[in-house]
Amino acid sequence: MIGDPLPSEKLEGQLLPKHLALPIFASDALSSVAYAPQELLMILLLGGLAFLTFAPWVAAAVVVLLVTVVLSYRQLVKAYPSGGGDYEVAHKNLGEKAGLVVASALLVDYVLTVAVSVASGVDNIISALPFLGDWRVELAVLFVIVIAAVNLRGVRESSKAFAIPTYLFIGSIFLMIVTALIRTAFGDAPVAESAQYSVNAANLGQAAMILLLLRAFSSGCSALTGVEAVANGVPAFRTPKVKNARKTLGLMGGIAIVLFAGLTAVALISGVHYAENPCDLQGWAECATSPQRSLIAQIAAATFGNNSILFFVVQAATAVVLLLAANTAFNGFPLLGSVLARDSYAPKSLNTRGDRLVYSNGMIVLALAATVLLLVYRANLTQLIQLYIIGVFVSFTLGQSGMVKHWISLLRSGNVPSGERSSIVRSLCINAFGAFLTAVVLIVVTITKFTHGAYLVFIFMPILWLLMLGVNRYYRDVEKEIEVDPVTTFGSRGDHAIVLVGKMQKPALKALDYAIAARHDSIEAVHVSIDDESTEHLQKQWIEQNIHVPLTIIESPYRDFGIPLIKYLKHRREEHGSEVVTVYLPQYIVGHWWESLLHNHRAHRIRQQLMLCHGVTVALVPWLLDSSSLIYGRRSRPLPGQDRRGEPVRPVARRPLEPASKTTGHTHGHGARGAGSATGPAVIPVVTGTPVNAGQTPASPSGTGGSPMPGEKPPTETKKVPARAKR
Amino acid sequence: MIGDPLPSEKLEGQLLPKHLALPIFASDALSSVAYAPQELLMILLLGGLAFLTFAPWVAAAVVVLLVTVVLSYRQLVKAYPSGGGDYEVAHKNLGEKAGLVVASALLVDYVLTVAVSVASGVDNIISALPFLGDWRVELAVLFVIVIAAVNLRGVRESSKAFAIPTYLFIGSIFLMIVTALIRTAFGDAPVAESAQYSVNAANLGQAAMILLLLRAFSSGCSALTGVEAVANGVPAFRTPKVKNARKTLGLMGGIAIVLFAGLTAVALISGVHYAENPCDLQGWAECATSPQRSLIAQIAAATFGNNSILFFVVQAATAVVLLLAANTAFNGFPLLGSVLARDSYAPKSLNTRGDRLVYSNGMIVLALAATVLLLVYRANLTQLIQLYIIGVFVSFTLGQSGMVKHWISLLRSGNVPSGERSSIVRSLCINAFGAFLTAVVLIVVTITKFTHGAYLVFIFMPILWLLMLGVNRYYRDVEKEIEVDPVTTFGSRGDHAIVLVGKMQKPALKALDYAIAARHDSIEAVHVSIDDESTEHLQKQWIEQNIHVPLTIIESPYRDFGIPLIKYLKHRREEHGSEVVTVYLPQYIVGHWWESLLHNHRAHRIRQQLMLCHGVTVALVPWLLDSSSLIYGRRSRPLPGQDRRGEPVRPVARRPLEPASKTTGHTHGHGARGAGSATGPAVIPVVTGTPVNAGQTPASPSGTGGSPMPGEKPPTETKKVPARAKR
Repeated sequence: MIGDPLPSEKLEGQLLPKHLALPIFASDALSSVAYAPQELLMILLLGGLAFLTFAPWVAAAVVVLLVTVVLSYRQLVKAYPSGGGDYEVAHKNLGEKAGLVVASALLVDYVLTVAVSVASGVDNIISALPFLGDWRVELAVLFVIVIAAVNLRGVRESSKAFAIPTYLFIGSIFLMIVTALIRTAFGDAPVAESAQYSVNAANLGQAAMILLLLRAFSSGCSALTGVEAVANGVPAFRTPKVKNARKTLGLMGGIAIVLFAGLTAVALISGVHYAENPCDLQGWAECATSPQRSLIAQIAAATFGNNSILFFVVQAATAVVLLLAANTAFNGFPLLGSVLARDSYAPKSLNTRGDRLVYSNGMIVLALAATVLLLVYRANLTQLIQLYIIGVFVSFTLGQSGMVKHWISLLRSGNVPSGERSSIVRSLCINAFGAFLTAVVLIVVTITKFTHGAYLVFIFMPILWLLMLGVNRYYRDVEKEIEVDPVTTFGSRGDHAIVLVGKMQKPALKALDYAIAARHDSIEAVHVSIDDESTEHLQKQWIEQNIHVPLTIIESPYRDFGIPLIKYLKHRREEHGSEVVTVYLPQYIVGHWWESLLHNHRAHRIRQQLMLCHGVTVALVPWLLDSSSLIYGRRSRPLPGQDRRGEPVRPVARRPLEPASKTTGHTHGHGARGAGSATGPAVIPVVTGTPVNAGQTPASPSGTGGSPMPGEKPPTETKKVPARAKR
Repeated sequence: MIGDPLPSEKLEGQLLPKHLALPIFASDALSSVAYAPQELLMILLLGGLAFLTFAPWVAAAVVVLLVTVVLSYRQLVKAYPSGGGDYEVAHKNLGEKAGLVVASALLVDYVLTVAVSVASGVDNIISALPFLGDWRVELAVLFVIVIAAVNLRGVRESSKAFAIPTYLFIGSIFLMIVTALIRTAFGDAPVAESAQYSVNAANLGQAAMILLLLRAFSSGCSALTGVEAVANGVPAFRTPKVKNARKTLGLMGGIAIVLFAGLTAVALISGVHYAENPCDLQGWAECATSPQRSLIAQIAAATFGNNSILFFVVQAATAVVLLLAANTAFNGFPLLGSVLARDSYAPKSLNTRGDRLVYSNGMIVLALAATVLLLVYRANLTQLIQLYIIGVFVSFTLGQSGMVKHWISLLRSGNVPSGERSSIVRSLCINAFGAFLTAVVLIVVTITKFTHGAYLVFIFMPILWLLMLGVNRYYRDVEKEIEVDPVTTFGSRGDHAIVLVGKMQKPALKALDYAIAARHDSIEAVHVSIDDESTEHLQKQWIEQNIHVPLTIIESPYRDFGIPLIKYLKHRREEHGSEVVTVYLPQYIVGHWWESLLHNHRAHRIRQQLMLCHGVTVALVPWLLDSSSLIYGRRSRPLPGQDRRGEPVRPVARRPLEPASKTTGHTHGHGARGAGSATGPAVIPVVTGTPVNAGQTPASPSGTGGSPMPGEKPPTETKKVPARAKR
C-alpha cells in the first residue's frame, strides 16, 4: 500500500560512509595545507630571517581560526542539513541580497580554487621533476583542460579511486612530519637545501612590521579554504546524516590542524627559506635559472633524502590531491548554479537535472576563467593566492552571521523545548564568535591583499551580483506577464491543417499521414516553389501517388520559405476569418552531433518564423534517421555535484520501473514487460459545469469548446494512487 | 496575363554598371600588385644585387601569364555566365572530384587572401607610421576582427563607398609611376632610401640560380590572385552581362599589367632594395629596430618626398584597397559555400539564403583561420605569400582544363553553326594555352614553395576535399533512406491530444485552447509533478478555473520531465493500441538573444525526448513575450555574396506584395490592405479514387483515411494562375 520504496533504499545504498566522505569532500580543505605554510613563511621572510620567530604565533592564530570555523560549520550542518551551505543560510536569514553576495563570492572562489590548486600542483610536480620548469604555464593549462575534459565526459566524484590519493597524502605527510620530529628528537634534525641561504632584512617601521605579520596571517588563512565542502555534501552522507557529517567535519579539522602545524614546525626546524622572488635568497647562484622548490618538496628531500622513493611519493600524492581539489570545483560550480537557478537567480535551465549540455557550458566557463587567470598570472601561486580567500571569508562571515540570526529567531520563536535551549545558546555563541572572527579576518585579508591584486575580486563580485539580481527581476517580470488574469480570454475556433511538403519523401508522407489521422476540419498540403522543375515533378508524383489531399503551390520568387508561407496564412486568415491553423513540419532526428550540422536548419528557420504568426500551432512530425538509434541508451554518465546532493547512481535514461499495477491492482497484462508501464498516473475527475477560462468558446458555430470532443471517450473517473513514495 | 514582372525589373535596377563593377570585383586582383613586385624583387635579391638585372625578364614572364589568364577567363565568362567560376567549370567538365579539388583550393585561398591582404595592408600602414611597428600582429588581428564584425553586421559589397578607394589606389599609383618616369626622363631619377644598402652576394651554382629565378617568378605570380573574382560576379553585371564582364576583365587586366610593370620598373630605377631579413642589408644600422618599409612606401617617399601629402595618400589608398581585398573574401567564401551546398557538398543550410546565422558561422571560421595564420606567422607577409597562390593555380589549371574539354565536346556535338566554329576553335586554343601555362606555373610554384611552408596547403586541401566528399555521400545515403518506396506504408489512426501543463499560466492556457479548437478525438492535460506543493496548487486552480479537460498527474521521483512522460505515453500505447498522439507544448518567443539563455531549455529537452517516441507529434504553441515584438522588422541587412549573385537589394522581411486578385480577377475585397495577401497560390484539384500511399488506412474503424475529414470543406477546384513571372 505504501508503494515501491526502492528508490529511497537504493539511495541509501549509494550514500557515502564516513571513511569515503572524508577524503572525497575534504580533499579541497586538506590540500590547502600544501601551500598555506609555504605562503605564510614566505611573507614573513620578506621582513628578514628574524621574522621567522613570529611564525609559530601566526600559525597558532591560523589554527585558532580553523578550529573556530570548523566548530561554526558543525552548528550550520545541524541547522541546515540540505547542503545549501552558506548561500542558503545567508539567503534565508539575511535576505536575498546578502545571499547573492555569498553566491557571487563562491562563484569567484570556485574559479580561484581551480587556478590556485592547479598552480600549486604544478609547483610540486616541478619541484620533483625540475626539467619541467620551463613548462609551468603550459602544464597548468593542460591540467585544467584535462580536468575539464574528464568532467565533461562525466566522472563520479564519489568514486573510491578519488579517496586513495587523499589518504596517501595524509599518510605520507604525517609520516614525513613524524620522521622529521623523531630525527630532531635524536639530534639529527633534517636540514633543508635552502637553510644555507640568507635574505636581506628589510628595514621596517613598527606599522610595516604589523602589516607584514597580518599579511603572513592572511596568506596562512588559505589553509581554511574548502572547509565548507563538507557542509555542502551533507545529503550524500549515510544516516544519521547530520551526526556523520559533523563527525567528519571534526575529523577533517583535526587532520588539517595536525598537518598544517606539523608542516610549519618541520619547515622551521629544517630551516626552509622560501622567497617571493628566488633571487632574494643570498647565496643561491642559480636563482634565475632553477625553479625554487616548494616547501613540501624541500622538507621531503631533507627528511627522506632527495630523489628517494618516499620523496617522490610525497610529491606525487601532494600533486594529485591538489588536482583533485581543482576537480571538486567542477562539481561544486554546477551544483551552486542549480541552487541559484532553483531560486531564479540563474538561468532556470541550470536546474534541469540531466541536461548535460547545461553543465558542460558551466564547466567550460569555469575552465576558461581559470585558464585566463593561469595565463595572466603565469601560473604563479603567490600571485594567485592574493586573489584567493577573499570570497571564502565573505561567505564565512555572512554564513555565520546568518546562523546567529537563525539561532536568535529560533530562541525568540519560543518553540524550543527547554532541554534544547542551552544547546541552542551554545550554538549561538559559537556562531557569533565565528562570525566576529571571520569578519575581522575578512577586513584584515582585504586590507593586506587589496593592492596586491585582490581588487579584481571586488570588481567581478559586484558584476556577478548584478547579473544574478537582473536575471531574477527578469523572471519576475515574465512571471507577471504570463499570469492568468481575468481580462485575457481564450476561445479559439476553426481547425485547419497545413502540411508543408518539400519533396515526395517519407518524412513528408509521414507528416501527411499524421495530419490525416488527426482529422482536422480541413487539410491541405502546401509546397513552397523555388524551382519550377522540382515543383512540376512533385505535382506529377502527387497525382501518381493518388494522394487524397489538395496540394497548394506557393510561388517564392525570392527563394525564402517562411515569408511566402506566412503571407499565405495571412491571406487565408482574411478569407476565412480567425481560425487555428496547425502547420505540420517534418523533422529529422539524427544520431550524431555532426549530423545536426547537416540537417534541420531550414525547418528550424521556418519554425521560428511561423511561431511569430498569429493563430499558428507548429506540429513537428519526427522522422528518425537510421543513425538516430544511437541516441537511445546514452546519457548514462554521472552529473556533476550529484554526489553532494546524495543522488542515487543511475543511468538517467534506463531506470527500471516496476509496473504501477502492483499498487493499484489494475493489471495491464504485461508482467514480463513491466518495465514499460508508466509511473502511476493520477487523474483528476472532470469538473462538470460551465468552463470559466480555458476552452471557453461562447456560441461557437462549429460546436467546439465546452462540448465533448467528437469521439472522445468519457474520461476515467478513478483517482489512482501515486505509485511511489514521494521523497 | 503575364503577371507582375516587377522583381526582374527591380533586379536590373540594382545591377552594377561597368564603372562600379570594375573597382568592386577587381579590388582583390589590383591590390595584389601592392605586394607582388616587392616579393619578386626580394627573392631576386637573395642572389645578390647582380640578380636584379633579371627582374625585367621575370616581370615580363608574369605579365605574359597575366595576359594569358585574363584571356582565358574571357572565354570562361562567355561559356559559363552563371558565376560559378572554376568550380562549376571543373565540376561539369572534369567530374565531381576535380570540382572538389578546385573547391578545396578556393576555400584555402580565401583564408590566405584575408591573411596576406591584411598583412600587406598593415605593412603599408607601418611604412607610413613607423611607430606602429611593434604592434604589427595586434594590428593585423584587429583588422581581421573589424572586417569580420562589419560583415557579420551586414554590409553591401556593391556600395559605392567601396569603389572610391580602388579608383584612388589606381589613380595614385599611376600618378606615382608617371611622375617617377618623367623625373627619370628629365635626369632627376628618384632614389629610394634603401638604394645605398648592398647585400651579400650568395655564391650560387647554376641550378640554384635557376631555382632562384623560378622562386622569384612564383612570388611575382601573386599578382594574378583575384582575377577570378570578376568571373564569379557575372550575374551582377548589367545586360549584356557577358559582354560587360568581358570588357571589365580586359580593362582590369590592362590596369593590373600597367601597375605591376610600372611599379617594378620604378623600383628598379629608384634602386629599392628589399630584403627577406632586413639585416641582410649592409649599411643599415637600425635593421633590428626599425621596420623595413614596403616597396610602395619607398617608391612613394622617393617620388613624392618622404612624409609628403601624396606619400600618405598612396599609403592610405594602398592599405584600404588591401583591406577591401580581405573583405571580398568574406563575400566570396559564403557564396562558394552556398554553391557547394546546392550541390550537396556542404551542409545544405549554407544554401538557405537569408539565414544570417549560417553565414555568420562561415565568416567566424574564416576570420578564426586567418587570425591563426597571422598569429603563427607573426603577420609576416613574405612567409604567408609562400602558402598563397598554390590554391589559385590549382583552380586556374583545372578551370582552364575544364574549358578545353567544354569546347572540344561542343565541337564534337556537331550542334555548332559553321559561323561560330572558328570562334570556338580560337577559344579552345586560348584555354588550352592557358591550361598548359598555368599547369607549368603550378608545378614551378609547388616545387619552389613546398619546403617554404606550402606543404601545409597540401595537408589542408585533401582534408577539405575528403570532408566535402563525405558530406555528399552522407546526403546521398539519407536521400536513399527517405525515398518513397513501395514497401513502407502509411495509415495511422487514433487521435489523442496531450497538453503539457506546468503552471496555471497563460501560455499553458493558450496551448489548451488551441488543442481544444483542434477537436481531437480525446484530450487530456498532463502535469509532471516534481514538487507536491505546486502540484496541489495546480489541481486547486484547475478546479477553480473550471477547466473542462481532465488533468492527469504523473509523478516524477527523479525530477525529469521527459522520461515519465514517455513512460506514460508507452503505457497509453499498451492500453489503447497504436494511435497518433499530439503533445502540445507551450513555447516562449523572446525578443533578445540573451533571453533565450533564460528560457525554453526544458521545453527544448522535452521536445527532443518526445521526438524519439513512437507515434508522437509535437505541437508547439507559441507564446509571444512582450519583448518579442522586437523580432519584427529585423533581418533587413544585406547578405554576403548577394552582389555577385546579382540579387536585388531588398529588406528580406518586408517585401511589398501585390494582391493576387489583380491577375486572377478573384477579388477578396480588401484593396486597401492588399499588401497582406498571398503570392497567388495554385491549387491542384483533388484526385478522386483510392489513395495509394499516404493516408491509406484500410478498414479504419473510426472511418479516417480516404474518407473526407469531418467538417471538411470541398477543396477548391479552380487552378489559379501563379501571380508572378518566374525567374
